[in-house]
Amino acid sequence: MANNRPESTSTTTIPYDELFAFAVAIFEEIGCPENEAHTAALALLSADLRGVDSHGVARLIGYVRLKEAGRANPKPQVRIIHETPSTAVMDGDGGLGLVVAPYAMQVAIEKAEKVGTGWVSVQNSNHFGIAGYHALKAVEREMIGIAMTNASALVSPTFSTERLLGTNPICVAVPAGEEPPFVADLATTTAANGKLEILQRKSEEAPLGWIQDKDGNPTTDPHALKTGGALLPLGGDREHGSHKGYALGAIVDIFSAVLSGANYGPWVPPFPAYVPMPTGMPGKGIGHFFGAMRIDAFRPAEDFKFHMDQWIRRFRSATPIAGQEKVLIPGDPERAMEAERRLHGIPLLQPVVDDLKTLAARLNVAFPG
Amino acid sequence: MANNRPESTSTTTIPYDELFAFAVAIFEEIGCPENEAHTAALALLSADLRGVDSHGVARLIGYVRLKEAGRANPKPQVRIIHETPSTAVMDGDGGLGLVVAPYAMQVAIEKAEKVGTGWVSVQNSNHFGIAGYHALKAVEREMIGIAMTNASALVSPTFSTERLLGTNPICVAVPAGEEPPFVADLATTTAANGKLEILQRKSEEAPLGWIQDKDGNPTTDPHALKTGGALLPLGGDREHGSHKGYALGAIVDIFSAVLSGANYGPWVPPFPAYVPMPTGMPGKGIGHFFGAMRIDAFRPAEDFKFHMDQWIRRFRSATPIAGQEKVLIPGDPERAMEAERRLHGIPLLQPVVDDLKTLAARLNVAFPG
Repeated sequence: MANNRPESTSTTTIPYDELFAFAVAIFEEIGCPENEAHTAALALLSADLRGVDSHGVARLIGYVRLKEAGRANPKPQVRIIHETPSTAVMDGDGGLGLVVAPYAMQVAIEKAEKVGTGWVSVQNSNHFGIAGYHALKAVEREMIGIAMTNASALVSPTFSTERLLGTNPICVAVPAGEEPPFVADLATTTAANGKLEILQRKSEEAPLGWIQDKDGNPTTDPHALKTGGALLPLGGDREHGSHKGYALGAIVDIFSAVLSGANYGPWVPPFPAYVPMPTGMPGKGIGHFFGAMRIDAFRPAEDFKFHMDQWIRRFRSATPIAGQEKVLIPGDPERAMEAERRLHGIPLLQPVVDDLKTLAARLNVAFPG
Repeated sequence: MANNRPESTSTTTIPYDELFAFAVAIFEEIGCPENEAHTAALALLSADLRGVDSHGVARLIGYVRLKEAGRANPKPQVRIIHETPSTAVMDGDGGLGLVVAPYAMQVAIEKAEKVGTGWVSVQNSNHFGIAGYHALKAVEREMIGIAMTNASALVSPTFSTERLLGTNPICVAVPAGEEPPFVADLATTTAANGKLEILQRKSEEAPLGWIQDKDGNPTTDPHALKTGGALLPLGGDREHGSHKGYALGAIVDIFSAVLSGANYGPWVPPFPAYVPMPTGMPGKGIGHFFGAMRIDAFRPAEDFKFHMDQWIRRFRSATPIAGQEKVLIPGDPERAMEAERRLHGIPLLQPVVDDLKTLAARLNVAFPG
């Protein structure tokens, strides 16, 4: 995208509905059936709504390039290839993760309706946007939702100079009663790659603990990933628990890919279509893992909601450190952002707008405004 | 235990079998039935074997005191109070977690055998030792094992001066083929409390990022927890992702307690029997959460094992950073420790030996050696 360009402070704000219609049109233009173009646009733009700008419409052109490079199938036949009452493995048929993931989450939810919980591991998919969007589908059905995915290797395990893991996010979303849901959506690295991209654009130094250079030394150079460096697992260094972040990223990789038959570790296909595919790939596409747990498979939903509300209120009312406004519940910042952006539109950086306009012209789709 | 005493470098090494027989005798002496005394000693001493000395036999006297204070029931009637084909909530009847947890894990495994996965949330329990012991029970049955527990509040959420979470560990254990299992067993804090105890004994400074003082300022004082300070969530500070560690600890609390009807947040009962119980407790005892996923509920076990072996070998053979011997697989250090200690015995610090001898004399049980 816009890496290495001078940071532009100018933004163009586009109403959500217009940006959504544009994304649908682009997905249709690359061959997605109408309903799946709609599904993909919903998932993609949920990132913009929730303030995860790195994973939203700024990536639309990346998905188009994957299709044009023959790396993503716009008309996948997503299917279950193995199942038990509470589990399934699904083959995404090389489809966009934005389309494959909702099918898989739906299967997890249906299994949970029948036997209490449902767990679906997915092979042969592509990037699915933000984990939170998929996990929240379960919350709508009074279930705890879990979503995770592996991704191409940008992260070095503790003590390694090699990049072997993706930023491998995990989301756990939990319904409450009167309070909004608890939504923990986290990359298993110290900092998300999107935050590093912002520093790259500004050429500002990164905090120590975010990245290492090609030899594994701590560095503040935000461009270190381009010269063989790596993102660091949550914890940053061994003394601060980076072996735990490494373990969490590894769990995501194993659940998403070793369990499903997707690629794992250094063999996960890259998102940018110009990056060569890894050699010796042991599986198919990238992998995801989804879970749905029906609340009333454990206790009456009303009891759970009462206590979840009390949990949330107790934490939110904790005495804050001087200078901090309040203690947040996971999901608070993203929900506030979504309310704001649904009302006032999605602000896009000028380089993103420029990319989208170029894409629109090339595919002969009208760009909003 | 031995906090604040001068560090003793002298240790006494006791063969595992002798220490095991001693622990069984102590558990029987406080009223545990023979089979459950055996169960409890196995779980407890697995911590010593795996090198998690803070959670092993050094805590035996703590369990005795819980019983003597009427806070732990040596003859619990552990029972399922709600279930579906893939889930259960169990009431630990105030028993030792060392006894309750194996019953609950067994239920998870049996459900997984029938419907692919099993998920059990437990209320009304006590501390269960190390999560890894319980998760590994599933690995013996060709399943992925998951174990977590909440604990009394020592950890401040990001931006909070109040302690609202325990160190809330998560273990995920995954079987492999020719390779030993992958076992990620991690407290959701930067550093485990046991590591802090070591620094306290030596009065050595802790690294920044492990603890904060009563006002929420970073501190290196290992005694800060005694003056209103707190352990920090994995990440250490907001810039390094402490909101992620906080979210992980919160997930453990919700799955273990809000789902089961146990106490959560600041209301989780303390381990030391001399610490007053929290007021206004919303549930029963402490909570755990267990999961078991049958490998062949996803793909043929042989396929999974082949790829899990390849995953492990690729990571273990990664190029190490200069000065580091090699990249480790989660579980490697603990397994090496267990092999060593099964062969050569368990080294106990002198203050621990002194405590155990006092306990032995008081309960009229012979101490080894």
